[in-house]
Amino acid sequence: MAKEKKLVEAITAMEDDFAQWYTDVVKKAELVEYSSVRGCMILRPNGYAIWENIQKVLDAKFKETGVENVAMPMFIPESLLQKEKDHVEGFAPEVAWVTHGGNKKLQERLCVRPTSETLFCDFYSKIIHSHRDLPKLYNQWVSVCRWEKTTRPFLRTSEFYWQEGHTAHATEEEAEERTIQMLNIYADFCAEYLAIPVIKGQKTDKEKFAGANSTYTIEALMHDGKALQSGTSHNFGDGFAKAFDIQYTDKDNKLQYVHQTSWGMSTRIIGAIIMVHGDDSGLVLPPKIAPVQTMIIPIMQKKAGVLEKAEEIRQKLAEAGFKVKVDDSDKSPGWKFSEQEVQGIPTRVEIGPKDIEKNQAVIVRRDTREKTIVSLDELETKLAEVLDQMQKDMFERAKKHLNEHIVEATTWDEFKEHIEKQDGFVKAMWCGETECEEAIKEETTATTRCMPFHQEHISDVCVHCGKPAKKLVYFGKAY
Amino acid sequence: MAKEKKLVEAITAMEDDFAQWYTDVVKKAELVEYSSVRGCMILRPNGYAIWENIQKVLDAKFKETGVENVAMPMFIPESLLQKEKDHVEGFAPEVAWVTHGGNKKLQERLCVRPTSETLFCDFYSKIIHSHRDLPKLYNQWVSVCRWEKTTRPFLRTSEFYWQEGHTAHATEEEAEERTIQMLNIYADFCAEYLAIPVIKGQKTDKEKFAGANSTYTIEALMHDGKALQSGTSHNFGDGFAKAFDIQYTDKDNKLQYVHQTSWGMSTRIIGAIIMVHGDDSGLVLPPKIAPVQTMIIPIMQKKAGVLEKAEEIRQKLAEAGFKVKVDDSDKSPGWKFSEQEVQGIPTRVEIGPKDIEKNQAVIVRRDTREKTIVSLDELETKLAEVLDQMQKDMFERAKKHLNEHIVEATTWDEFKEHIEKQDGFVKAMWCGETECEEAIKEETTATTRCMPFHQEHISDVCVHCGKPAKKLVYFGKAY
Repeated sequence: MAKEKKLVEAITAMEDDFAQWYTDVVKKAELVEYSSVRGCMILRPNGYAIWENIQKVLDAKFKETGVENVAMPMFIPESLLQKEKDHVEGFAPEVAWVTHGGNKKLQERLCVRPTSETLFCDFYSKIIHSHRDLPKLYNQWVSVCRWEKTTRPFLRTSEFYWQEGHTAHATEEEAEERTIQMLNIYADFCAEYLAIPVIKGQKTDKEKFAGANSTYTIEALMHDGKALQSGTSHNFGDGFAKAFDIQYTDKDNKLQYVHQTSWGMSTRIIGAIIMVHGDDSGLVLPPKIAPVQTMIIPIMQKKAGVLEKAEEIRQKLAEAGFKVKVDDSDKSPGWKFSEQEVQGIPTRVEIGPKDIEKNQAVIVRRDTREKTIVSLDELETKLAEVLDQMQKDMFERAKKHLNEHIVEATTWDEFKEHIEKQDGFVKAMWCGETECEEAIKEETTATTRCMPFHQEHISDVCVHCGKPAKKLVYFGKAY
Repeated sequence: MAKEKKLVEAITAMEDDFAQWYTDVVKKAELVEYSSVRGCMILRPNGYAIWENIQKVLDAKFKETGVENVAMPMFIPESLLQKEKDHVEGFAPEVAWVTHGGNKKLQERLCVRPTSETLFCDFYSKIIHSHRDLPKLYNQWVSVCRWEKTTRPFLRTSEFYWQEGHTAHATEEEAEERTIQMLNIYADFCAEYLAIPVIKGQKTDKEKFAGANSTYTIEALMHDGKALQSGTSHNFGDGFAKAFDIQYTDKDNKLQYVHQTSWGMSTRIIGAIIMVHGDDSGLVLPPKIAPVQTMIIPIMQKKAGVLEKAEEIRQKLAEAGFKVKVDDSDKSPGWKFSEQEVQGIPTRVEIGPKDIEKNQAVIVRRDTREKTIVSLDELETKLAEVLDQMQKDMFERAKKHLNEHIVEATTWDEFKEHIEKQDGFVKAMWCGETECEEAIKEETTATTRCMPFHQEHISDVCVHCGKPAKKLVYFGKAY
């Protein structure tokens, strides 16, 4: 038992040190390994498989709406990056510069893409001529690079993985519709697959994307009371089109600028999965996104017939469509339980000589530890029920946690008191002034997470400055 | 008709200028667009969708053999690249260097990965400790960067897409077995999915991968008589393990070095698809890898019921598992035929008022232009037959072309005469000396493509120097 204890003990308790708990989990669950490259992480098979599942689901959802995948260069010439004024100001300070190719100095520096608006705009200016060429609904799955000073796996790394969708439309209305459509896809995906409820809303001018007219966001709440921006969708209007001269001839043969959007979700979302669902034993993966949904763990596996039975069950479950493995290593069952728990595998199926005698197995849920003894004849049905229930329960628990951690503040004292606790979102009215928003951040470190789509009027005046209230805002400390 | 002619005329005839034909096809089929980044291409939806299909099939084949996907950083610190002597010599001259992050000069330069052996070795040295940790069978789907002077879409670009598998094994035998296993997966994939027959063999020491003990290759033959290296698999022995100190304790508790392999296939293979199957009307895609297998083209689509029928057929075919689209744009049918042909969509289904009256449609094969009139009641069955037959015929034609373009040379005059024609592979005996191989290249521009697994003895002496023959070699001009 000494060894088993060690594996679990190696994870710091959440209550003691949440940041250390997080680091322990990503390491012990073998999601990530630190690399010799400053600020860059290695996604190990357990981590990358989660990303692959996310990709599979989202990619299909995108394609259902007409999106096509492309691949753009990983480099951006400096002159191209500089074409849109706000955009370059936002990104130039944090890019990596390629200055030499082979042994020669380049005539023009290239940055490693921090995001690809400028490349898509350049591309669109070449291939869009007529209204017949619209809309263009392109996406790419790539990694991008932003030179971060302090990094944490998934949450903030110099290189990270994401998809970036970039669309061009004939009209303003169509672009706005697409911006909201993609935000809804992200929100629904989080709820249905990741069991993560989110708040949908618009970013303030201060927090919006460099170069965008408007940025929409989904915000999730972590266990420690901090918010995580989990996906964004931007409407650019015709700002980039004017900077890059992307024009088309409309049906009346007149030249018009296109209207553009972009939208992205990144490996950051894996950080959300960890911090919304994890516990002191490690990761807890929602069944619908888990690379392995059940681990079969043989008990007394040296006894004749046990491993054979475990393999027989594996085959039966795999044929029924479950993602299933057998842990037939020479470790003790207790050690295997710990590993399955640390890695967040949603269920385990225990099968030993006594179970075989009784034609039964034990299903254990990762989140509640609830055990169900089931007849082997109905293992598929029962396992499906357990996984289905677990997925629902995980969402309900997260939803309850979110709802219980949204508080209202109508006075500045109330506001400060809530924010200091770092215990979720603080709903408050705001005057709409960037200066006031900056002062709030300065005094409390809280930022405006979003102006929720669902607006309420909880007070007539701004919580900070007392001027007339313009918007309800969710404030919070954030990753 | 003027417009239709223009589309086809825009493609240079193969006979007139093969290089220009190739460039015209990749552009007109909308596979690729040139970017503003020197030597980097944009993969457009038509091009990227082929790569996605290749990924889907290969990835599943890899995973069946136990391979897991990971993601490594895109950068390699200069000191890491330099750890294996042959490797750094091979790659350092052609890498892109990142020297600045944000506004600061980096303490150590980072190169953009040209290939990731060094990163995997560094990773393996951290996570491999015991024989229980072996084998490690990792792969990643990424882009890599090699600073090329002259570039051509798919064939040679500064950035290109590929998968790179990297494995670590306890024994030499296991590593060798894996190297061959992966080469066979590539060869089978080319034959079965891409309808491209290949020659399997080993590279000479001169042509092998920088740092490898042995490199195996598959070589395909293009329409113009040049060879294209289409996939490679390398056995590193324990060379990298020693340079990076990757050791494990074996069952007797002794320290041992691991044995490693790597293997890759890239977007280059799309160049092979184009140059093996294309014709003067454009691309011809093998049905098994085509993103769209059939384009339904309505005839007289303004007549009542035609578009509705076309859509009804599309739904029926899609439900039956075909990848199918309707071209309901306002272009003429002739123009639509040209587009479908340029893009290499394997079949089209023509449906007009007269067909609807007769409850029939016309299936037209892209490769042979063969037309089949079929009853709408048996469209699914017939279309499946046509696609199946086309896939087989494409392979047989390519196989016949390959077999007819392998000639033997036993004298130097014969050899030179064949090579000058640039008309396929020249089989000849070789002494095994690198100097002789270099002299052959110098005099003829032909390179050793491979020492085929299937060795024959066609002469006692080297075709060039007359010394005793050691190996049968396939020579050729190559991309």
